[in-house]
Amino acid sequence: MGSTAAKRLNINNINPHIKAAKYAVRGELAVKSEEYRAYLRSGLTDLPFTQVISANIGNPQQLDQKPITFFRQVLSLLENPALLNHKDVLLNQLGYKSDVIQRAEWLLKQVGSVGAYSASNGVPAIRQSIAAFLERRDGFPAKESDIYLSAGASSGVSTLLHIICADANSGILVPIPQYPLYTASLAVLDATCVPYLLDEARNWGTDLAIIKEANEKAKAEGVDVRAIVIINPGNPTGASLPEEDIRAVIDYARQEHLVILADEVYQTNVFVGEFISFKRMLRQMQAEKPGEYDDVELASLHSVSKGMVGECGHRGGYFELVNFDPEVQAEIYKFVSIMLCAPVIGQCLVELMVNPPRAGEPSHDLYKQEYDGIFNGLKERANALHKAFEQMEGVECGSPQGSMYLFPTINLPPKAAEAAAAEGRSPDEFYCMRLLEATGVCVVPGSGFGQKDGSLHFRTTFLAPGTEWVGNIIKFHKEFMDKYR
Amino acid sequence: MGSTAAKRLNINNINPHIKAAKYAVRGELAVKSEEYRAYLRSGLTDLPFTQVISANIGNPQQLDQKPITFFRQVLSLLENPALLNHKDVLLNQLGYKSDVIQRAEWLLKQVGSVGAYSASNGVPAIRQSIAAFLERRDGFPAKESDIYLSAGASSGVSTLLHIICADANSGILVPIPQYPLYTASLAVLDATCVPYLLDEARNWGTDLAIIKEANEKAKAEGVDVRAIVIINPGNPTGASLPEEDIRAVIDYARQEHLVILADEVYQTNVFVGEFISFKRMLRQMQAEKPGEYDDVELASLHSVSKGMVGECGHRGGYFELVNFDPEVQAEIYKFVSIMLCAPVIGQCLVELMVNPPRAGEPSHDLYKQEYDGIFNGLKERANALHKAFEQMEGVECGSPQGSMYLFPTINLPPKAAEAAAAEGRSPDEFYCMRLLEATGVCVVPGSGFGQKDGSLHFRTTFLAPGTEWVGNIIKFHKEFMDKYR
Repeated sequence: MGSTAAKRLNINNINPHIKAAKYAVRGELAVKSEEYRAYLRSGLTDLPFTQVISANIGNPQQLDQKPITFFRQVLSLLENPALLNHKDVLLNQLGYKSDVIQRAEWLLKQVGSVGAYSASNGVPAIRQSIAAFLERRDGFPAKESDIYLSAGASSGVSTLLHIICADANSGILVPIPQYPLYTASLAVLDATCVPYLLDEARNWGTDLAIIKEANEKAKAEGVDVRAIVIINPGNPTGASLPEEDIRAVIDYARQEHLVILADEVYQTNVFVGEFISFKRMLRQMQAEKPGEYDDVELASLHSVSKGMVGECGHRGGYFELVNFDPEVQAEIYKFVSIMLCAPVIGQCLVELMVNPPRAGEPSHDLYKQEYDGIFNGLKERANALHKAFEQMEGVECGSPQGSMYLFPTINLPPKAAEAAAAEGRSPDEFYCMRLLEATGVCVVPGSGFGQKDGSLHFRTTFLAPGTEWVGNIIKFHKEFMDKYR
Repeated sequence: MGSTAAKRLNINNINPHIKAAKYAVRGELAVKSEEYRAYLRSGLTDLPFTQVISANIGNPQQLDQKPITFFRQVLSLLENPALLNHKDVLLNQLGYKSDVIQRAEWLLKQVGSVGAYSASNGVPAIRQSIAAFLERRDGFPAKESDIYLSAGASSGVSTLLHIICADANSGILVPIPQYPLYTASLAVLDATCVPYLLDEARNWGTDLAIIKEANEKAKAEGVDVRAIVIINPGNPTGASLPEEDIRAVIDYARQEHLVILADEVYQTNVFVGEFISFKRMLRQMQAEKPGEYDDVELASLHSVSKGMVGECGHRGGYFELVNFDPEVQAEIYKFVSIMLCAPVIGQCLVELMVNPPRAGEPSHDLYKQEYDGIFNGLKERANALHKAFEQMEGVECGSPQGSMYLFPTINLPPKAAEAAAAEGRSPDEFYCMRLLEATGVCVVPGSGFGQKDGSLHFRTTFLAPGTEWVGNIIKFHKEFMDKYR
């Protein structure tokens, strides 16, 4: 091998915007946790734990969550349509119901083969199914031509930011803390992130005064602020926004001429109150004051990765555009064409998610039982974990509201901050690294999402089963506090 | 709806680099062909044709190509692992062989669930399988840590160009004609495309004198030329490069310190001679002259979309990095992390592609029969289409060598060029539009890929079954030539 200096590409001459991007969800801690996992698999037993708990990433099926039977039965038929020549075997020996077979036949008729490219924006019939779902969910019409299938919501976010950001001066208001996809994508695009803090004291809600201050400051600096990102339910915060927050954001977006990017991938993970979509609220406000909100542009994203579906590995998702200019939509269509289309089996899974078995249909009872079981399991785990945090010295955490995460504040002793600084780490990073080393539990430091200066947090999923790992966190925390007190 | 002028995003203020990108494979002609298809489906019969032939895009399973049984049987078990509780039914009633079951069980053990995110660069065991395939193919070692799974080769190309291009002055040598993914991605990145013409007279081979001229001209203009793209076998040209062309490119890349991007997605679609990978040739040259080629950086891409697999809709692919700087690889890892991972079922399909049933294994005979059947069918269709072109006045086309395309020259009468200009079209665009309107056959004009000034071409796949559509092209061409003579 030649020396590094002789390489055409080296760390000093590659795309600086990629170097600038940060993505802590899969950063140093995640890599180290995978090394521990491999170490344990190799049979070695000299670590202080016997399993790695990946609480760093919302990856339900890596942990305990089982796929929903109806979904996977249909997908198996889409992958091997030859099975449809044996309907009697499917029905009588393999537990497939007639609606599974009907849905698979219908989807196959629409896609031809899941091995064929679809239209760039997705299979037309699947977009129609999504539009019908949105109409049922919101009580307002939706058009299939405004819907774009994507490879998970992440690729939808990337598409939208690519279109919106024209140059380095284009600014996007991003909540802090945020899912780092946003800051990372803006870094890669070399556009300007305009951070606004969420209000931890009010269950991580949006505070219009803070948004306004952030926007005005950026504008005064000459930034061309174009859009505002809202993640609802929140990631990493777990917050579920009340109607008044949503209304206030829409009003402000109208006044300031901001596009709204509503990341609503956790829309079914809501434990407190009910999920209100930005689309529904915008249409309602348009109906209340005709003509006033017709120019508020909204893009809303959803995905098969989260919720009770939890099928991240299938990379299925979509976004809906509301009030967008048709010429802009044509450019979005062309842009997504360059990557051809979203994975077709993932598109089919989106269809199943938005159009699940209904009451009275043969697969409905099992579907409902599985769906409710997952929902209740998540809620119970969230509450159990929250209870544990309540016992822990210096840890503050609001009640679980939604999504798959808790994001507690951790108040650490000054000596811990000193020890962290000696290692060149932030105190929350230091805490999370020690937690991983002591317990095998991998969480993400708050600094990976952004947090108010002087505050410290970590994000943990509540997907992992069992209570042992929670007990290990409590024990570790006590020892950590005692050591650095 | 508000007026266009009132929108925050309009055609005049969105990202100009996306506006600048062109992607003709799914452009106006493709959109019109889909309109015709919908029109025919609705039962209307007043068009001069009864079916649309999508010869514009290499989408085998949209046309005649059947998926390979072994692949799809395994995938059906991955989607519904509960089927593995009924092995007797699978084996005795549904035609699954024991190696299908074994492979599915092994893959499930590796991925956990196809609904879970994998590692950002792909499932480790699948990367090991790819490395083993590359060793068998090339006779040289390959490392799993140098392999990155991607959502089709397109997303791999996008990743690599993102890393390589540091600013607008970064230049990439791109063959003309080319698959427009390259020019479109460079436009989006606002980097510099440095075009070099392929040599039509020599079966669309690479001509080092032309590459050198293009590179020197760009360098003289101050462009920082960093890499050279080679598509072998060629798209749209169908060329299969001989060893001397590959050696010459590697030598030149070494001399000029250029990264080689080898797009080898058609590596099994070779009718004349044998496919030689850039990796094999580079390692061979490294062995022949120790130390001389150790700094030639190569990225080679492959995919499940083409070849006898033809599973485009699954968006599976990978790239291998050779001689890359580890720090640069770490940045690539971080960058692909932002989109989390390639579709896991597509990753599994990559594994099946690179590790198909071997002689003596239960699924081998059927696999080989299906594989050879597809290969021979493509070869026959390519030759039949080529024969048709030989009969057509003013059409010149070299013998089919590989990939899925023919790219004939069309010499059109001056009156056709005048009629095209009156419509604001290039003559090849005009010809392709009239062809679509008269026959329902959709091809892509040469201008969509780039062509030598003054020459005209179109690209057609030879995937469509039957001979009727070829007869229709012959008839159309005669009438077109008579009309504009």
